[in-house]
Amino acid sequence: MTEAGDEMYRWARDLFPICRSITGPGIRQTLDYLRDLVPGLQCHAVASGTRAFDWTVPDEWTIRDAFIADETGRRVVDFHNNNLHVVSYSEPVDRWLDKAELEQHLYSLKDQPDAIPYVTSYYQRRWGFCLTHAQRQALAPGRYRAVVDSDLEPGVLNYSDLIIPGEQKEEILLSAYVCHPSMANNELSGPVVVAAVARWLLRKKQRRYTYRIVFIPETIGSLVYLSRNLDVMKKNTIAGFVPTCCGDDRAYAMIESRNGGTLADRASRHVLSRTAPGYNHYSFLRRGADERQYCSPGIDLPVVSILRSKHAEYPEYHTSLDDLSVISAAGLQGTHECLCRTIDLIEANRTYRVTVLGEPQLGKHGLRSTLGQKEFPKQTAMMMNVLAYCDGTRDLISLAERIDADALECAAVVERLFKAGLLVEVSENGRPQSQ
Amino acid sequence: MTEAGDEMYRWARDLFPICRSITGPGIRQTLDYLRDLVPGLQCHAVASGTRAFDWTVPDEWTIRDAFIADETGRRVVDFHNNNLHVVSYSEPVDRWLDKAELEQHLYSLKDQPDAIPYVTSYYQRRWGFCLTHAQRQALAPGRYRAVVDSDLEPGVLNYSDLIIPGEQKEEILLSAYVCHPSMANNELSGPVVVAAVARWLLRKKQRRYTYRIVFIPETIGSLVYLSRNLDVMKKNTIAGFVPTCCGDDRAYAMIESRNGGTLADRASRHVLSRTAPGYNHYSFLRRGADERQYCSPGIDLPVVSILRSKHAEYPEYHTSLDDLSVISAAGLQGTHECLCRTIDLIEANRTYRVTVLGEPQLGKHGLRSTLGQKEFPKQTAMMMNVLAYCDGTRDLISLAERIDADALECAAVVERLFKAGLLVEVSENGRPQSQ
Amino acid sequence: MTEAGDEMYRWARDLFPICRSITGPGIRQTLDYLRDLVPGLQCHAVASGTRAFDWTVPDEWTIRDAFIADETGRRVVDFHNNNLHVVSYSEPVDRWLDKAELEQHLYSLKDQPDAIPYVTSYYQRRWGFCLTHAQRQALAPGRYRAVVDSDLEPGVLNYSDLIIPGEQKEEILLSAYVCHPSMANNELSGPVVVAAVARWLLRKKQRRYTYRIVFIPETIGSLVYLSRNLDVMKKNTIAGFVPTCCGDDRAYAMIESRNGGTLADRASRHVLSRTAPGYNHYSFLRRGADERQYCSPGIDLPVVSILRSKHAEYPEYHTSLDDLSVISAAGLQGTHECLCRTIDLIEANRTYRVTVLGEPQLGKHGLRSTLGQKEFPKQTAMMMNVLAYCDGTRDLISLAERIDADALECAAVVERLFKAGLLVEVSENGRPQSQ
Repeated sequence: MTEAGDEMYRWARDLFPICRSITGPGIRQTLDYLRDLVPGLQCHAVASGTRAFDWTVPDEWTIRDAFIADETGRRVVDFHNNNLHVVSYSEPVDRWLDKAELEQHLYSLKDQPDAIPYVTSYYQRRWGFCLTHAQRQALAPGRYRAVVDSDLEPGVLNYSDLIIPGEQKEEILLSAYVCHPSMANNELSGPVVVAAVARWLLRKKQRRYTYRIVFIPETIGSLVYLSRNLDVMKKNTIAGFVPTCCGDDRAYAMIESRNGGTLADRASRHVLSRTAPGYNHYSFLRRGADERQYCSPGIDLPVVSILRSKHAEYPEYHTSLDDLSVISAAGLQGTHECLCRTIDLIEANRTYRVTVLGEPQLGKHGLRSTLGQKEFPKQTAMMMNVLAYCDGTRDLISLAERIDADALECAAVVERLFKAGLLVEVSENGRPQSQ
Repeated sequence: MTEAGDEMYRWARDLFPICRSITGPGIRQTLDYLRDLVPGLQCHAVASGTRAFDWTVPDEWTIRDAFIADETGRRVVDFHNNNLHVVSYSEPVDRWLDKAELEQHLYSLKDQPDAIPYVTSYYQRRWGFCLTHAQRQALAPGRYRAVVDSDLEPGVLNYSDLIIPGEQKEEILLSAYVCHPSMANNELSGPVVVAAVARWLLRKKQRRYTYRIVFIPETIGSLVYLSRNLDVMKKNTIAGFVPTCCGDDRAYAMIESRNGGTLADRASRHVLSRTAPGYNHYSFLRRGADERQYCSPGIDLPVVSILRSKHAEYPEYHTSLDDLSVISAAGLQGTHECLCRTIDLIEANRTYRVTVLGEPQLGKHGLRSTLGQKEFPKQTAMMMNVLAYCDGTRDLISLAERIDADALECAAVVERLFKAGLLVEVSENGRPQSQ
Repeated sequence: MTEAGDEMYRWARDLFPICRSITGPGIRQTLDYLRDLVPGLQCHAVASGTRAFDWTVPDEWTIRDAFIADETGRRVVDFHNNNLHVVSYSEPVDRWLDKAELEQHLYSLKDQPDAIPYVTSYYQRRWGFCLTHAQRQALAPGRYRAVVDSDLEPGVLNYSDLIIPGEQKEEILLSAYVCHPSMANNELSGPVVVAAVARWLLRKKQRRYTYRIVFIPETIGSLVYLSRNLDVMKKNTIAGFVPTCCGDDRAYAMIESRNGGTLADRASRHVLSRTAPGYNHYSFLRRGADERQYCSPGIDLPVVSILRSKHAEYPEYHTSLDDLSVISAAGLQGTHECLCRTIDLIEANRTYRVTVLGEPQLGKHGLRSTLGQKEFPKQTAMMMNVLAYCDGTRDLISLAERIDADALECAAVVERLFKAGLLVEVSENGRPQSQ
């Protein structure tokens, strides 16, 4: 049963060929596709030259063609064969060079001779070509024509967002980046998972919290987004997630927020440790994507990253090998389920206090067998543990961890006890909440 | 040397045959016996129908006879052979049934075919018989007469208590339950150990703290007791102990209070980890007896349970196999000594501060050899460690744990240093206490 | 390269033959030698009978000769062969005794038959001789003449100190004891290392903190020193070090301050765990030298002890076997480097806060390659980690431990970022410091 996974995989397959970068037509095309999936998604444009904290939005890059041709005119490296062949943000060039000079503009990986590396130069004007090491070694001596048919002109940086309202103004952030060209796990998995979770949220009958769905180019996009939305995000964000490299099926992982211990950390950790017990728990020292900005000092949003195989660790990372064979419907589905469970947990995460002194007489309330025997069912033990630790000091996650139970199973027990009048919700200031 | 143990074992042997339940003649007879052992013990009666938090005191149960007879009139199950044969609180019945109908009222244990299980139905009117699985399988097809000659009428619930006064009004609670019929470890061990500790306390020349000795039926008894004494117990109780399943000689164990870290937890843990290093330390999730009520949210007394083999874990638990062969004089003695040491430790648990700056010159005070040599005795090292850490911030237990020493041995060293004027007691607000 | 070590070893060799005790000509001669090494060292004298907390300065001891002679006049034990042969502070005696009576005054070590033990009796008038167990067993029956040619008269106790001023009045203490006769690791290693560190401090162009260099007799000396300087030391001392048994090359070790966690603990632990990863980390329960006084309750200076092989643990300890062969230039050098690194770390230990929101654009500041590739250098990762955790809540040591980096390497990175305007120093009250 990977219905959601199959759907996400199809979206990734559609988006794979587009040559994305941090600006330009590729990212716009990608955001248009996502808007069709997620009704209500708003596309925004920010002019080149706009400041975002220590950064400035660069010129817009348009790439039409790029190749290296030999003296016979044969294209030995051709952008039309693979988007990764051109260094992202390459400035225009059309020159004949001898091989030695050309080498200054070539990037390949000796250790992965069949992989085209992914290289960028957003903030320094350069041009360059990426190719497999095998291709590079096959280059004969002689002269070559290097052509990059690109524009680097003032334009805009684009991103999209959507606020899905809930009963409370407190927000949960879901952020994916859409600037990587033609790589699947990093990074089409994040966008398609976030799109699927957004659709699931839109279908939900009841949402306690408000959700902020964000599709941006990495780094400059999150900085721009934060510089325009910082106040409201600092005020309202109770948890945030950056799913990335989350489409393969080799592992589960999370990266803690900068100082750890936030609601996002606690909920993710609980869900992952129960549903994927051998998952990799990384400290923020191992960060890599937009959580770097969301968690930076002074911004300090409670954001974690959710992954399968971590960036910079799986062999295909940032190369042409990270293609559609790396991800799978099952891999995408697993991440989707983990995120939905985590969100369900945060939605259910309230603090309760038992309404009677001493243990309640569960038999009288129809919640337990009236027969006293040597053993009683696990369900009864869990109910009694919930009652013992619902003292108004622990939210659902803490309660579940204290009694070594699954928090969503606890939520079901809490629901029964609440209906029996044995639990009352406690507001943050310690008094029972008016219902 | 198990003099105290031999005595406790004799008491258990005397009490074993009585058919106790949470109300009725059996528990009254037991409380009478204990009153003879513990002078001053007061017996109390609470009317059926009295509310205690979420509970109501049930009708009083009197059992005279109970049997299953076959068509020839032969008793195939007979209460007079073993009290456990009748489900506790069985309502009266005298009926002929065919075997299939009778089976609805029978309880046996497939996995322990020679054990009669212990079954109760205090709050739901039922009748039933408990028998060995071997007996059950030997029942021939045919008709049977089931007779329970019992009363279930408004009456009283009984319990006993005794306040043994000390210099301070702060109390230490010792609570045992006396509602189990004809089982030895669970539960005659608790009552006889508490009786012996009460007698030891009464013999003591000096008691810093007040002691509250309580004998009650389990659960409903502690709830009734708490509902009548909650204010004074919440105000004064500094530590409490529920000894249970504490008469065998297979292990030592304690169950922490609900949130742990109370004086009762700290003292018990210290004594057990030093006198029974391999003891089992259970969290409150593994609770089972009246600590469930004493520690419940809003009551929150600092109460731990002291055990040998834990309830629901040793094989004879809640069956007829839990007879006098399970407990021993040595087993009871061990629990008694552990409790007395724990009480001695709490009595000695004061906070001291050294009176001089720098190390005292111990040789001058006659507390150390005046010869400086390569090695000095362990006793000197311990004295110097006591002095180094008696800085007014640690009570005796913390001090002992900080310097990795036995707290009662520390108490002896502290006594010597106190007499030499090198230590002064510190009151809770940090100033030396006037003596 | 053990230039500093060779120099320290030569000093130890010069000082080795002197018969030191807690008072008298031997310690004065030692302090004179140290004054030649450390310009500005002040020598102080305190009269016998002076009180220091619980102690009193004893009479001054002068030893000229001591021997045991047999009936032929042959010296079988002779102070002139080894200073350790006489119990330190032996009162004068000149008596003929039979062997049995003499035995009452002899000290030897059965387990180390070739070692002369080191024995003292500062506060109880005695006389005695220390000898190898082999010598003792060779003593024939008969009569012996015991001669101690000593004075025990009112005089003075001497010690030296030097304040090396820094920009701030906050002090770092370096304390060594100079009362041990003719033993090398314990205790000439401490004095020569402290002398070398003092010379290094005097050569430094810039000192943030003030340094207090102290050479004292052990125990009574530190007590006298504290009794005369307590107020200023309690007010100003931010870290202190007692290097002792620090001249051999078998191990590294530190002894924590009494409650641990002081700046001295944190800095030493960081340096040792990085430069000597297998070092021995001892709790204050394993203390032995003047840290006993500096850390005692009510004095509570933040002082740790720095060692190689711990006192009372290495086999030659407190015997004649602790000679110049136990220590080495390399051993002394290692301790010296560790102390200098620790001091450098404390000098550099400031708290910084990043000046921009979000990650800075390091490429723009010339701090990082502008090319985005699969891997980036370790140095860049460290710089980004420094920026991520410089949030104004962590000093340099905490920062380094949080990002699992060497603090002095961090200091270099911090320096670059500070110069680029990306970090600002935070004062203790949380506001940026005016520069």
